[in-house]
Amino acid sequence: MSTSLGFEARIRAPFEEAVERVTDALREQGFGILTRIDVRKTLKEKLGEDFRDYVILGACNPHLAHRALSAQPEVGLMLPCNVTVEQEPDGSARVRIADPEIMLTAGGFETDPDITSVAKEAHGLLGLAAESLADPE
Amino acid sequence: MSTSLGFEARIRAPFEEAVERVTDALREQGFGILTRIDVRKTLKEKLGEDFRDYVILGACNPHLAHRALSAQPEVGLMLPCNVTVEQEPDGSARVRIADPEIMLTAGGFETDPDITSVAKEAHGLLGLAAESLADPE
Repeated sequence: MSTSLGFEARIRAPFEEAVERVTDALREQGFGILTRIDVRKTLKEKLGEDFRDYVILGACNPHLAHRALSAQPEVGLMLPCNVTVEQEPDGSARVRIADPEIMLTAGGFETDPDITSVAKEAHGLLGLAAESLADPE
Repeated sequence: MSTSLGFEARIRAPFEEAVERVTDALREQGFGILTRIDVRKTLKEKLGEDFRDYVILGACNPHLAHRALSAQPEVGLMLPCNVTVEQEPDGSARVRIADPEIMLTAGGFETDPDITSVAKEAHGLLGLAAESLADPE
């Protein structure tokens, strides 16, 4: 399943277990998690606002990142690849994975062969990660 | 000065001092740094590759993030706002700040009034941060 910015999957599991499954699925495709932002905690601390469980993970495949940054250092503005996990009212977790092929259209990089090659490869790997996460209906 | 993805400034100072100045300039506009990726260190550790000093900072204005995520949870795929600091061969540091107004075109969010309003405000604040960083010529 896809959204306007990337891939999407639904996991029927408690929130933290869902985050672990996402982390494992990304690792299997060569993406490590470099950053984790706990949105609920951050908004509570900074604003006193209540928000549902929601984390933003920064996923990075070092080989692909190295190729992209060597070709075009400005690409760092789009790295790492964001993955969000959001608690749904029914207790499941919604996973979204940004699609590098969509993201790079923002910078007009779709004409740069080095960048499009990396983005295509990352698109394939992250699509496999999203597929592996989808629970059977 | 602008790049295809955002604002740019050059700081004539040692690398770590430049990162501190960027952090201060963002804080003055209400953006805290939630994440920091040391690209040089990460590529050395993961791949054994040498790369110049390069950090990716994740900057977040909690008020704007809360408004954006409340309106459209998928926007988390574009948060936080990336800021890169890169060592140049002449010893200066090149700063790039992603422009939310450019980034949101990737997701087709330019027709969502809640999101465009947040992006416009963030664009103004980050533009001020970039201006304040520019060394006099």
